[in-house]
Amino acid sequence: MSENLTEKDTNRIEALSDGVFGVAITLLAIELSVPDLKHVDNKSLFLALINNWPQYLTILNSFAAVILMWISHHAMFKLVRRASTPFMLANGLLLLFVTLTIFSTKILSYYLLTPAATMAAAFYAVLCVMVCSSFCLLWHVALKDKDLLMQHIPEKVIAIQSRSYRAGVVIYILATALAFVNPWITVGICTASWIYWMVSFKKLDVRV
Amino acid sequence: MSENLTEKDTNRIEALSDGVFGVAITLLAIELSVPDLKHVDNKSLFLALINNWPQYLTILNSFAAVILMWISHHAMFKLVRRASTPFMLANGLLLLFVTLTIFSTKILSYYLLTPAATMAAAFYAVLCVMVCSSFCLLWHVALKDKDLLMQHIPEKVIAIQSRSYRAGVVIYILATALAFVNPWITVGICTASWIYWMVSFKKLDVRV
Amino acid sequence: MSENLTEKDTNRIEALSDGVFGVAITLLAIELSVPDLKHVDNKSLFLALINNWPQYLTILNSFAAVILMWISHHAMFKLVRRASTPFMLANGLLLLFVTLTIFSTKILSYYLLTPAATMAAAFYAVLCVMVCSSFCLLWHVALKDKDLLMQHIPEKVIAIQSRSYRAGVVIYILATALAFVNPWITVGICTASWIYWMVSFKKLDVRV
Amino acid sequence: MSENLTEKDTNRIEALSDGVFGVAITLLAIELSVPDLKHVDNKSLFLALINNWPQYLTILNSFAAVILMWISHHAMFKLVRRASTPFMLANGLLLLFVTLTIFSTKILSYYLLTPAATMAAAFYAVLCVMVCSSFCLLWHVALKDKDLLMQHIPEKVIAIQSRSYRAGVVIYILATALAFVNPWITVGICTASWIYWMVSFKKLDVRV
Repeated sequence: MSENLTEKDTNRIEALSDGVFGVAITLLAIELSVPDLKHVDNKSLFLALINNWPQYLTILNSFAAVILMWISHHAMFKLVRRASTPFMLANGLLLLFVTLTIFSTKILSYYLLTPAATMAAAFYAVLCVMVCSSFCLLWHVALKDKDLLMQHIPEKVIAIQSRSYRAGVVIYILATALAFVNPWITVGICTASWIYWMVSFKKLDVRV
Repeated sequence: MSENLTEKDTNRIEALSDGVFGVAITLLAIELSVPDLKHVDNKSLFLALINNWPQYLTILNSFAAVILMWISHHAMFKLVRRASTPFMLANGLLLLFVTLTIFSTKILSYYLLTPAATMAAAFYAVLCVMVCSSFCLLWHVALKDKDLLMQHIPEKVIAIQSRSYRAGVVIYILATALAFVNPWITVGICTASWIYWMVSFKKLDVRV
Repeated sequence: MSENLTEKDTNRIEALSDGVFGVAITLLAIELSVPDLKHVDNKSLFLALINNWPQYLTILNSFAAVILMWISHHAMFKLVRRASTPFMLANGLLLLFVTLTIFSTKILSYYLLTPAATMAAAFYAVLCVMVCSSFCLLWHVALKDKDLLMQHIPEKVIAIQSRSYRAGVVIYILATALAFVNPWITVGICTASWIYWMVSFKKLDVRV
Repeated sequence: MSENLTEKDTNRIEALSDGVFGVAITLLAIELSVPDLKHVDNKSLFLALINNWPQYLTILNSFAAVILMWISHHAMFKLVRRASTPFMLANGLLLLFVTLTIFSTKILSYYLLTPAATMAAAFYAVLCVMVCSSFCLLWHVALKDKDLLMQHIPEKVIAIQSRSYRAGVVIYILATALAFVNPWITVGICTASWIYWMVSFKKLDVRV
């Protein structure tokens, strides 16, 4: 319908995505429940709040993950001008895995200190693989249909994006496999990767 | 108030709708709960996660449904320039049925493998009828008031949209009736229809 | 900061409000839970779904209420150009009562067929009074600071808006009082008032 | 990518933030549950609704807090033109603490009338410190990278903003410490501070 090929025309797909990211982030914190105390005094409440640390860690972890995915999504959409049906479907798939990440983080935080740690860590890393694969797919769909991307994007920028998404897939497949050696290696790789993405976004000078 | 008849003026109705679609999608994945294990070990967690497959299937199914409804909503609103009160009410009705779809999908996934499968499948298909009917109503309201649509929309595009919404109603009434023959026919028709909509959106080259 | 006095500058306050309305609407439908059946067969599921009618009625009722409030909010903001701090606070108060409406509707649907019907109906009507009062307050704040409204709004439009919000307050105070005569009068007045607002919005030809 | 240095380019970061604020506000009211009555009559329902006052107070309190944070966020973003990766991460941290405020308010309302009041009040005030610190950090990131701010912002405005965020941190650290003298002092300081922010926003004539 729109004949204007230079105007950005992806407001609604961005609005839908921002809604999903925003709700996902908020629901993280909402899950915290008021601790039930046997003896209601200051010391018990203090201890109850302190002992809640694995849940705080989970929330912080998921928070960092979702914010980084949002930044990555935002960075990609700066290059996108229009959306086709396959692109919208691929974006939907990505949103699905983003929200599922919260589930896998819950699994990890719940079972990391138990004998089921290996499976929990592997499951968590598999979800990371899915998220990165969805980013790959979305980017691939955008690249295949030249009509979707902004004009005059430097080849270098496209190459960096492609490499970054592929690198993610490889890293998390490795992290999945290494869970069967030691689940803490998986946790270490995933945490290190968040820091890596933060630095790499900063180096790319993503400004949006 | 606005005198400019060519400018698009439906930002807020789209924002409200995107909010509803976004929350609906996110809440799907949030419902997944950490499995409780009797023996906490890797194998039990693996089996618990695997045995959860009907829930994953439900989520994937609802996800596809909500994303497709969103794409359809988006495609229609590309043609809409302004909103009247009846149009906003019809859009609200559509949003109601969109969120209720999640309920009907839950019913279906819960009872599909039980003796209540027929009723569950019929209920699911009835909700699909309601969604398609709401799309029909919304489109009908837009067509009746020429002021609401963009100017210069080719007759062909209008005809395709009208046919597509009506076809949906007919297909899902049929699917409802056939649930009483065999609920798997209903499931088959609904799944096939998602694929049909995907291909048909692609053929129409919906770009938004 | 912005020196441009003719440009509309209320995007974010509308985005926040649309978010609240959208989430409120979606959460309505999410509350529906899968019925637990003693004997799992088609007839039981059918009956369970049918017997759920008070919940469906509640959802439909709240849905109509929230959509109408959104339309009313939208109609007011078409006339608003900028937001001051008092205006943002008044808008926040309105959003609070909008979300509380869902609570009062739950109370009503839960206790309407019990001996506590009078109190439930009165509580429901009191919330309606609060919503209308918030609309009055918001509109009053906008009127007092001429800088906030669009220029060249016909006096008639302002008078109609003012009257409509005040009428709402009076109607629902009456509905609250009459709950102590018979709760069904309250329910009747409220339902009739939804229809009245729908028709009155239509007559005003609110196009947004 | 964007070469246009004067255009505002923070739509999506604002959309994400509005989504989080909007969901947080809505979830506050959703938590209210229908009271269970032993004897279902009008008097019992009336008393149950009245006895719920601490929960209403909590909701009103959190509501005021979240709305004021939103106004403050909005006021800051009026001065921001672009977002860098560190800015987006700092904004994410702020959003995290905003949603956690709801948790700390729940703790406060639950334990304020118990022997654990001191710890509950201190926890509440600590969260306020975190929110103000996040605002400080976000503002600091924006100031350090001149490219992010609008051009020609009066020095006075920047100084007022900086002072206001720093003042918040100091006030709430004090409020935390004084909880160990008497928790009601903390509650008093926090309530007074909400009123102080409201008046101070009004005096600054924040118009957005």
